[in-house]
This record gives sequence, structure tokens and C-alpha cells, in this order.
Amino acid sequence: MITLEQLNLLSEQEAFSKLEQCCVSKTWAGKMVEIRPFSSENELIKTAASIWYNDCSVEDFKEAFTGHPKIGNVDSLKEKFAHTADWAGNEQSKVADANMETIEALAKANELYEDKFGYIFIVSASGKSAEEMLAIVNSRLNNNTEDEIYVAMNEQHKITVIRLAKLIEDLSKKADLSSHLTTHALDTSIGVPAKHMLITLKGLRNNQWKPMSVGITNNDGRISDVLPPGQLLSPGNYTMTFNTANYYKNNNQNGFYPEASIQFEVTDGSHYHIPLLINPFGYSTYRGS
Amino acid sequence: MITLEQLNLLSEQEAFSKLEQCCVSKTWAGKMVEIRPFSSENELIKTAASIWYNDCSVEDFKEAFTGHPKIGNVDSLKEKFAHTADWAGNEQSKVADANMETIEALAKANELYEDKFGYIFIVSASGKSAEEMLAIVNSRLNNNTEDEIYVAMNEQHKITVIRLAKLIEDLSKKADLSSHLTTHALDTSIGVPAKHMLITLKGLRNNQWKPMSVGITNNDGRISDVLPPGQLLSPGNYTMTFNTANYYKNNNQNGFYPEASIQFEVTDGSHYHIPLLINPFGYSTYRGS
Amino acid sequence: MITLEQLNLLSEQEAFSKLEQCCVSKTWAGKMVEIRPFSSENELIKTAASIWYNDCSVEDFKEAFTGHPKIGNVDSLKEKFAHTADWAGNEQSKVADANMETIEALAKANELYEDKFGYIFIVSASGKSAEEMLAIVNSRLNNNTEDEIYVAMNEQHKITVIRLAKLIEDLSKKADLSSHLTTHALDTSIGVPAKHMLITLKGLRNNQWKPMSVGITNNDGRISDVLPPGQLLSPGNYTMTFNTANYYKNNNQNGFYPEASIQFEVTDGSHYHIPLLINPFGYSTYRGS
Amino acid sequence: MITLEQLNLLSEQEAFSKLEQCCVSKTWAGKMVEIRPFSSENELIKTAASIWYNDCSVEDFKEAFTGHPKIGNVDSLKEKFAHTADWAGNEQSKVADANMETIEALAKANELYEDKFGYIFIVSASGKSAEEMLAIVNSRLNNNTEDEIYVAMNEQHKITVIRLAKLIEDLSKKADLSSHLTTHALDTSIGVPAKHMLITLKGLRNNQWKPMSVGITNNDGRISDVLPPGQLLSPGNYTMTFNTANYYKNNNQNGFYPEASIQFEVTDGSHYHIPLLINPFGYSTYRGS
Repeated sequence: MITLEQLNLLSEQEAFSKLEQCCVSKTWAGKMVEIRPFSSENELIKTAASIWYNDCSVEDFKEAFTGHPKIGNVDSLKEKFAHTADWAGNEQSKVADANMETIEALAKANELYEDKFGYIFIVSASGKSAEEMLAIVNSRLNNNTEDEIYVAMNEQHKITVIRLAKLIEDLSKKADLSSHLTTHALDTSIGVPAKHMLITLKGLRNNQWKPMSVGITNNDGRISDVLPPGQLLSPGNYTMTFNTANYYKNNNQNGFYPEASIQFEVTDGSHYHIPLLINPFGYSTYRGS
Repeated sequence: MITLEQLNLLSEQEAFSKLEQCCVSKTWAGKMVEIRPFSSENELIKTAASIWYNDCSVEDFKEAFTGHPKIGNVDSLKEKFAHTADWAGNEQSKVADANMETIEALAKANELYEDKFGYIFIVSASGKSAEEMLAIVNSRLNNNTEDEIYVAMNEQHKITVIRLAKLIEDLSKKADLSSHLTTHALDTSIGVPAKHMLITLKGLRNNQWKPMSVGITNNDGRISDVLPPGQLLSPGNYTMTFNTANYYKNNNQNGFYPEASIQFEVTDGSHYHIPLLINPFGYSTYRGS
Repeated sequence: MITLEQLNLLSEQEAFSKLEQCCVSKTWAGKMVEIRPFSSENELIKTAASIWYNDCSVEDFKEAFTGHPKIGNVDSLKEKFAHTADWAGNEQSKVADANMETIEALAKANELYEDKFGYIFIVSASGKSAEEMLAIVNSRLNNNTEDEIYVAMNEQHKITVIRLAKLIEDLSKKADLSSHLTTHALDTSIGVPAKHMLITLKGLRNNQWKPMSVGITNNDGRISDVLPPGQLLSPGNYTMTFNTANYYKNNNQNGFYPEASIQFEVTDGSHYHIPLLINPFGYSTYRGS
Repeated sequence: MITLEQLNLLSEQEAFSKLEQCCVSKTWAGKMVEIRPFSSENELIKTAASIWYNDCSVEDFKEAFTGHPKIGNVDSLKEKFAHTADWAGNEQSKVADANMETIEALAKANELYEDKFGYIFIVSASGKSAEEMLAIVNSRLNNNTEDEIYVAMNEQHKITVIRLAKLIEDLSKKADLSSHLTTHALDTSIGVPAKHMLITLKGLRNNQWKPMSVGITNNDGRISDVLPPGQLLSPGNYTMTFNTANYYKNNNQNGFYPEASIQFEVTDGSHYHIPLLINPFGYSTYRGS
């Protein structure tokens, strides 16, 4: 660990090497090095997002993806990316708890994913079980090639921030690492959080609705990292789609709503919380806090 | 049947005799006779309510109750009130469809009711099944003596209006026979109306919440006659209580809410619709239309 | 007016002439004539829809459209379609009440519509004010050419049924003329129906969401004729989109939701009621009754 | 600060002295001393509540209340309770920020309170502004004498736990200090938390609904300390009443609902979250998480 001040004072080469541990995109790490010094941990986080979302290309995204071991096949890849493998291995620790069947399905889905998209499946695995990751990869396999890269790059940046937090002392205390957008799903038929409900955040790209982030609710019905820290949605309309058909199917119930899509308008940098209260024949949403 | 004009022109004695067929309270029928002529069918209905609610006493209510055969024991009482029995028998026609067990329970409850309150169980039976009447009588058996008379007199007036509509030609076409207050319960877990849910309307009397009307939702989840036609709630606060515990018990489910009580403010004579969207662990209400 | 039996017994030529008064599509009228006798008024209505939706082509739709005077320019067209003009004139009676500015805007929009799509603007005008028709035509002007024809043909059939009800004695008493789908919007911030809210029903055609019907809520917040009588939605997924942005803009308010889109699954011929409870920062829906 | 182990090992006299700093009830402190050793910080918290709620009398409550300076009149009381004054002064630090008018109204209300009930106004002041305290004292002034003591003793115990957390090292890290019951109010007309809404939790005592706790929502619309840590509601029915009339009055709005009362059933020790989504003509509740 180093302090922010130390990062600011490192030689270009040393700083690049440190930042490359967080994301192997040369464009991203290079621009981060150049733009130093960072006046605060918060500025570091915002700049990291700004460079990634505004200054990097699809090629940069793909380069960044090469800096990860394949999930579900950790061992063989440890050697190749020795400088990031330790952290990456750690991030995937929850996988170990899953049963073999899920692991195998996940490995298979990872293969399909790589075959379809030409790069490995990137997901911010922190806190996610193998079942959750499997649901996510299967959902993302439905995306077309042009769209999926933007979902993957969003995950890449979540991982980058997790790694920045391991690199920079007290980053998680000093910077705001919350997501601009959060969600919460409650099943009011049974009075508990709606667990393992897939959601997709969509935005407009070239005037068409395109997926930006795919997540799954945790045991508390929440997704707290729809967006990476520091990434602000630009003003405009967005849609949060809750995959209710899949949710009810997993719970052996029938619902009236194949999905619940909530379109909303972002006007500023304040926090947006988009909850869903769902029951088989009715649902509600509101701007939460 | 006679026309409104004919009612206006009848001799006092003849008019009294006609109106007594609708409600045997001498005070009510007498004041109705006196206040003639009625300028419209609507005025007739409003006046009928106004006299009943404002000018009649508990003794008048009890006198009116004697003008009915006991429900569930129709035959033996037909003779006693020969001039009203035909209509009353007709109003209770739905009872015939019920099975014997319910009929017997209803007869028993009627006895308990008369024992407790000292007058027979009065309910506007139109459109109600024996099961629904049984649920209502059992609910009203829980009222104390002082309160129940006001629930019974409310039912009496609903019956009075039904009989007025049989007396006066085209009354139901020419007068507004809707209830100032209506309700609708929907079970959004199963996507259908919440049938047979007991509701109690309460108002403030001497600064205490007192029952005014007890009803039960029909197969469409509605109660359209919470109040008799012509009876306007005076401005103030009222509470509609939905007996959700009973509803879920009847459906072999557990709910989080023993009841759903909606307090609301009446400010004018516009229509008030108080719906309930219920599921076991959540509910909503709104001012409907 | 003739009875159903008379329609069944008319010569082919006479029957064709009668049915052509309802819809000038030769295919539709011809098939209706052939398929006689109708066993009931309900069967007539169902068959009328079935032929229109299943057996008629885009060319037939366009032919049918020629059987109407232009709305907003009634006089000049009366002559051309003398056999339908009387009824049509009558259907458009509400237009007369609107102020000149709206009439002119409506006439202008009709022109734009005809220029864009190549046929006149068809809308079931019954019960709609000029303002409401103007909102509808402006909304439909946004559709592309390929889609709009299906919205127009849906309106055509609503008009056909209105005319059938004028042709066949007691049709509206004997047949079920309700819409398979209805809606209701309530503004729970102000406790009244959400008036003049545009809605669009969309279905899947060639795996893409396409508009099927465009309507606007009336003063009671309802649209009771989303679909023509007799037209059953085939099992599958549909989306009802409430144009909340437009609603709030018209009311000089800001809302969080540019639109509220409710996707739902139709499984059978039972009635579907899709209400919306809306306030600026929250909304609810449920399967109503 | 001492550790839990040290508390367990202190002489009876020393332990009593320490615990008396948290609550000056001799019964409570005495029983706490006797029941030692505590196996964990959590057990300490649970036992503190259990003794207070089950083994202490109204007289004990009143004795405990004497261990506080009067809020709003801090200086003069510091001397009298020198051993508790420092902490108490600290707990009331938010008062200093309020403007003079509120302070004076609060001082006045405190006087009225003491006049009416015979003991000083006890409230867990942590995190509450003078305005919030003023709203609470004014609400509690409406309680009758018999009921208010139970509201006050509930506040007393919140303060006791705050003081225990200052006495015992790492208590707040090692023990569960959450409230069995929490609430959250959101104003969905404006899309923000409903601030400064009074709520009253009621339970059944001798078969009558009685106030147990009076709170006010903070700037995030939440009340996180409806109950003191360690205090579990026994299974049964409770009612959470949101004072919506007061809320809308403070915001110069009219609402349809004078209050929103949510009755719910507690069956076990799991967390109960009772939120309210409110707008002027509609509200929703659900079991949250």
C-alpha cells in the first residue's frame, strides 16, 4: 500500500507500474500517470472513471480484459498475470463455496462467452456467489457483440476501483465509493427481499436503448454497485429492467409481468435509488433515498 | 307502483300507508307525509335520509326493525307483517341458494343477535349470499349494544330505499341511488378481487370511533352500498377498516397485517372511493374515482 | 335498423350493401356476407373482428379508410360517401364544441397525417373532444409508415362496430361490446383521475415491439375502448405505455418518469385491466378488475 | 472505559457505581450487578433491557428520571448530578445549534411537561435537533399520565444504552445495538424523504392501544431508534401511526389522510421495518428489510 501523496510523487515508470496493477490498459494507466497529482482520494476516483469512460476506446477495454485470469479456471492463469493474480484470486474467493455443478456450468458459460465475444468474461466478483455469477453470465450471453463490450468495460472499472482501494491507503475511508445508482427489490407477497433478481440498466446510445450494466440482487434484495464508484450518469433518461419472469420461474411461481422496466430521468449527481416492490400481480416503484 | 306526483297528491292517510310499507317507523313515515310535496325523485331520496338520520330516535329505529321478518326464518313471520312480507321475502331470495349448514349457522346467529341486542338482525340482503350475511352478523355480534343500533339503522335505511324504489315509478332511473362512499379490495398476489373481506366504516361520535356500517366485499371485491342512497357523510374524519386477518384466514394464508385501517377526511359531497390493494406483506390505498 | 335474423336472410347483394355501410372494405364485407348466418349477435361481433384482423390485408385496410369523411373537414366530404356520411357526421359531433384554434390545429394535423401516410386520419371519435383527437393524431404522427397502418386499422374496426350497432337491432344489448383490455390512470398527488394521458398499447410483430392502439384517458382517467369489441389479444406479452412526461408537462409539473411502461402477459380471454397510480416520484400498477 | 471482563470482576459496590452512571434506578443497577457475569456484550445489552422492561416498576422509572439534567436548562442542573452531567450535556449538544425561539418554546414545553406529569421530559436527544425535540415533547404532552410514563421509560432506556456504550469498551462494535423496529417515510410526490414526520408506536396494554414510543423522522426520513437496543417486542399486534396531517400542515399542503396507521403482527425476533410511501391522496406500506 502507498499513500495518495506517494502515488503523486512516484516516477512515471513506477506510477505506471502501480496503476497497471489496477487495470492493464496502457491508455488508462498512461493518462492516469500524466494527469497526476491528484488533490484528493475522491479526485483520484472521479478521474479514474472519467478517463475510462471518456478517453478509452473499445481496443483499450479489450486490452484491460487481458489482465484477468478466467473466472472458474483460476489456477492455470495465475502464472500469466502474476502481478495481478493474487488480488484477482482473492476477489473470486466466493466461488470456492459453490457446488461443483454450478462451477462446471460457470466454466462452460465462460467458454461460450469467450467464443461469442472474443474476450474473457469480466465481472466484479466481490460478494457474488457462483450461482449469481452464473445467472449474470447467462444473461450477458444474450447481448449482441456490439453492446456487451460496454457492459464488460463497466465491470472492468468496478474491479479497477477495488484494486485502487487495495493500492492506496485509506482510499475507501477518504473517497466516496458509492454507486450513483442503487436498487432494491422486495417481494411483498412473502415480506422478504427479492433475492437473485437480474436487473439491467439501459441507456441511450445512438438513440437506441443499450445495456450499460447487468447485476443481480443479493440476499438483501440489493445491488449496491450498479455503477462503479466515481462514474456519474450524464443527465438523460435511463431504464432499469427487473427480470421478474426469471425471478418467479426460479421460485416456481407465475407472475403477470414478464419484466418490470422503470424508465427515469437523471438530472444531476445526487444519488438515485430505484426500488421495486413486487408481487405476482402488482408492482410499485418510487424514487428512494 | 305510483308516480312521485301521485305520492304528492295522496291523502295523508293513504300516503302514510304507502310510506309505512317502506319503513314502519311512525316518526319517519309521518314526517315524510308532512314534508310533501317532493319536487323530484332525488329530493325524495335525500329527504328520506335526512329525516331518518336527523329526526329519528333510537326508539324510532327499533320500531322500524319490527317491520321485518327474521332472516333465516322467513315462513313463520310472513303472517305477522303481511303488508311488507312479499317484498322482504323477495329481498332475501339469495338465502335459498345457500347450503343447510350455513342457513342453520345464520339462524343461530340471528338468535344470538336478538338475545344480545333485543331486536332482530337487520341487513340489506339484496345481492348477498347466506355466507356473506353470516360473516356480517358474526362481525356485528362483536359490537356493543350502544353502537350496534347505529349499524342496524343504517341497514334499515338501505332497505327503506330499496322499497321506495319499488313504490315510486322510475325512482332508480330518476334519482341518484349511489353511495357517498364505496370501496374495492384487490388481492395483488393472485390478481383477482379480494372477495368476502369484511369492512367496517367508523366515524366519531362523542369524540370516539364508532362503527357506522359493516359490509363485505362481493365477488368483484366491491361494496357499492356502504351507505344508503341520499345519506351524505358530514365533513370530518372517517376510518375504513378492512379485516385482512379474517380474509387471509379464510384463504389459509398468513398475512402481516391483522387489519388495514384507512383514516380519511371527508370535506364535501363528492364521491369517495377508498380502495385497498392488498398482498400478505404490503398494501396500498388511494383516493379512487 | 334490421334484426340479426333479417341480416341472415337478406340476399347477398342486399347484405353486402348493408355491411358496406359499416366498412367499405370489399374483402371484409364480402367475407361477412359469405359466412352468414350468424348464430348470435356475439358471434357477429367476433366474426367481424376475426375477418378484419386475420383475413384482411393492408390494401383492404386502405380501402376501408376511403369510406370516411376527413375529420375536421366534414362538409366537403359528405357528398362523396353519402351512404356513410350521416353516421360519420354524427360520430364526430363532439368536434363542434371545440374552439377554433384546436379545430385548426386538428385540420392541420390531419393534412400532415395524410401527407405522411397516404390515407386520411382514422380515429373512433365517439366521446372524444377535439383536444383529445389532436393529442392522438400528434402522437400517431410519430409512428413510422409500416406501423401506423395497424393503429389505423384498429380504429377502423372500432368504427365498424359502432356502425354495426346502428345497423343491427339490440346489438349493444345482446352482444358483449367491451374491450378485452381497459385502463385507468389516477393521479394520487391530487386525488383525481389523470385526464388526457396518452397511452400506447404495443405488441410483438416479427419479434419487435410495435404500436397496436393509441388512446387518451377521458375525464374519468379511463380508456374503455383500447381494443374494438370482439377483438381478443392472442396469448403473449404486451406493453401498455403511459406517456407521463406529456401528462406532467401539460400540468406544468416535473416528474421523474418520462413514461411508465407496463409489460404484462395475456394468457386467455378474460378481461385485462391495467391501471396506473401515478405521482411525480412513484407509480404502481396491478391487475385490476 | 472498562472492558466487559472488568465489569464482571468489579466489586459489587464498584460495579453498582459504574452502572448507576448509566441509569440511577437502584433496582435496575442492583439487579444488573447481581446477575453478573455477562457472557458477552450482547448479553449485557439484552439483560439491561430485560431488567428494565420486566423487573422495574413505575417508581423505578421515576427514580431513573431524576438522574438527568433538564433539557434546555443544562447549566443549573449540572451540579446536582455531577457524575452523569458530563455525558448528558454531551448528548444534548445539538440543542446549541437551534435558534433562540425554538429553545424558548422547548424550555416552555419542558415546564408544561413537568407540571403535567410530575417528572422532567426524558428523550434520547442524540442526533435530534431542537425542532425535532420540540415536536416530540408537544406530541407527548397529549398523552395521559398513565400512558406517558411508558413512553418516557422507553427513552430512558435508550439513554441508558448510549451510556453503557460509553462505559464498556467496544460495546458498539461487539453488541447488536439495532432497534427491533425501524421505519422510513418517503414523500413520493417530491421524491425525497419525508422529514420531521411524527410517528407513534402503540401496543396493547390491558387490551387497549397504548403509546410505547414517540419519534420523529430525521432528514433521511428514518427513525432508527424506535426501540432501545436489546428490547424485543413480544409477539403480538402493534400499530405504527404516522402523523401525516401534521406533516402536510408543516409543508403547507392538504392531504386526504389525517394519519396513516399501520397495524402489523410481530411473531419473532427478526428485524421489522415498517416504511411508508406517502403522497397527498395515496399511501403504501410493506414489510421492508
